[in-house]
Amino acid sequence: MQAKDKQTYALAGVNIETANEIKKLIAKQVKSTISPQVLNLGSFGSMFQLKGYEEPILVSSVDGVGTKLKIASLLAKNDTVGIDIVNHCVNDILCCGASPLFFLDYIAMDKLKPEQVKSVVTGIVRACREVNCSLVGGETAEMPGIYSQGTYDLVGFIVGVVEKKNIIDGGSITSGDIMLGLPSSGLHTNGYSLVRRVFGIDDDPSCLHKFYPQLGKTLGEELLMPHRCYYRELKPALPLIKGLAHITGGGFEGNIPRTLPEGLAAHIRKSSWDIPPIFKLVQQQGNVDEAEMYRVFNMGIGMVVICTSQDAPKIIEVLPQAKAIGEIVNAVREERIRID
Amino acid sequence: MQAKDKQTYALAGVNIETANEIKKLIAKQVKSTISPQVLNLGSFGSMFQLKGYEEPILVSSVDGVGTKLKIASLLAKNDTVGIDIVNHCVNDILCCGASPLFFLDYIAMDKLKPEQVKSVVTGIVRACREVNCSLVGGETAEMPGIYSQGTYDLVGFIVGVVEKKNIIDGGSITSGDIMLGLPSSGLHTNGYSLVRRVFGIDDDPSCLHKFYPQLGKTLGEELLMPHRCYYRELKPALPLIKGLAHITGGGFEGNIPRTLPEGLAAHIRKSSWDIPPIFKLVQQQGNVDEAEMYRVFNMGIGMVVICTSQDAPKIIEVLPQAKAIGEIVNAVREERIRID
Repeated sequence: MQAKDKQTYALAGVNIETANEIKKLIAKQVKSTISPQVLNLGSFGSMFQLKGYEEPILVSSVDGVGTKLKIASLLAKNDTVGIDIVNHCVNDILCCGASPLFFLDYIAMDKLKPEQVKSVVTGIVRACREVNCSLVGGETAEMPGIYSQGTYDLVGFIVGVVEKKNIIDGGSITSGDIMLGLPSSGLHTNGYSLVRRVFGIDDDPSCLHKFYPQLGKTLGEELLMPHRCYYRELKPALPLIKGLAHITGGGFEGNIPRTLPEGLAAHIRKSSWDIPPIFKLVQQQGNVDEAEMYRVFNMGIGMVVICTSQDAPKIIEVLPQAKAIGEIVNAVREERIRID
Repeated sequence: MQAKDKQTYALAGVNIETANEIKKLIAKQVKSTISPQVLNLGSFGSMFQLKGYEEPILVSSVDGVGTKLKIASLLAKNDTVGIDIVNHCVNDILCCGASPLFFLDYIAMDKLKPEQVKSVVTGIVRACREVNCSLVGGETAEMPGIYSQGTYDLVGFIVGVVEKKNIIDGGSITSGDIMLGLPSSGLHTNGYSLVRRVFGIDDDPSCLHKFYPQLGKTLGEELLMPHRCYYRELKPALPLIKGLAHITGGGFEGNIPRTLPEGLAAHIRKSSWDIPPIFKLVQQQGNVDEAEMYRVFNMGIGMVVICTSQDAPKIIEVLPQAKAIGEIVNAVREERIRID
């Protein structure tokens, strides 16, 4: 009788040693983010001591980077997506008035590549340190057959905290309030499937190396611009802010109404800021309807701050980049947003 | 001049409406998990009020289900992996003594299929309700080109809490302490890439429908058995427990030493429990070395409880399924575990 071929986990495409190698590679970096409130790491769960709050409200969010990851893979530049995922999450919980406490990541790919994971984590660490957020945990998964060859996914989870009395939930917004827009740094993390199609990037990635004078950089450099974090600049202004909307998937229409009480609508004036060149380029290249552009992209405004008209000048004093981009009005029928 | 084809997000393979349809499909189910401590849902971040703890320690964990997802896809049965991901996370933070507070999920696929997402979320909801954990958030992502056709990934993120004085961290474990094993319900969520290879499942999924008398069910049914949750049964025994090890990827060797102080080792006696038939079947079918089996699989023990020899009988009284499977000894050289 012929002996069967001996099967092992490694032959099945999973290498426990590689996962351990990765842990060693990133251990020192991760440690640099850890606050004294973190009691342990590397156990089954990560422990974080919550101190100094009277009525602590934990604010959490989960996000992915979407197919911006494809651009990162094609250019073999994986640190900026690490920054993206943290900043996306930090901005999301900031909309409730929360400060970041800790972050966990999940990185999965068809075949674990330690250098690639290290590069992603380098970006995560950099962004976490920027906002005093402890990177307390993470999971790397090797899943042959689920991910297309050479691709990976990156997911971030954040927990922050806000005193109950300082929650920002849009509840006090009224007609006549002002919307201030803060500039985005580019596409942030939304609309990449459309951009990939418009430029035919999947078929011919060489277009990523093309220099565009209006961008002042190559297409690839522009598309990998990290998602801007608004935490540090907005933090001092939070007491004056009634509502915040992070402009991500779904654009203004998908995000501003989430923070408005029933019966109110946002009236955005397009002429109040300059649309950055990348959005014009995408629109032109893909012959994309303007309305579709506003539904998919941030169009140059990454965060919308809602405040009284009295407070608007005070906020602009602290945030010189903020621009009035519209006002809150009473909703007509079911229209929650008007962009004109 | 010929007009360019007009590009839209939908043509690029991303459908914002589908994502909204999914939100509606699952809204009612998700609501059934929500505790009064949850202040809001559907905003940029989810808010959870932490109450009733003197020195609260937040315990968090992130996990995936691995390629068990492939079996779920092949059998078009996606609810049990939802149970798997929650129970995996709950067991992980339980190892620190923590009770679950809230959970967030991430589901990504090449093309969003509302019914499939709904099915996964049904399992998540069922498992969350079982342990009073609020499903406060989630993200569904459509990523054409990153996921292989018809595949998806599922990630879970949990936050729980434990009073500082009740933390279980293995610190008080000494030589002479006893290890009790709690039975697993099958493979749980580890070793699926090896199992897929051993049975040639990817090449010919029909083997999943084969009935095995020793399993009392088909291979597919066995492989989709949900990861068992140990929270409810272990909760009353926690005050007597010095250390807990959730036996996941890496088996006994990869998990028990994580909870042991330096200088101690775990001595496991294999003869002390019956290896369930599925593990014997995998070993035989794949001609897998016994040592490799113990490195990859839980071999029938899903959770290991470490306690004094005096407390062991008291714990067994509360947990009749618990069996003494070995004891803690002084480590000889660097050997942290011995299985014989």
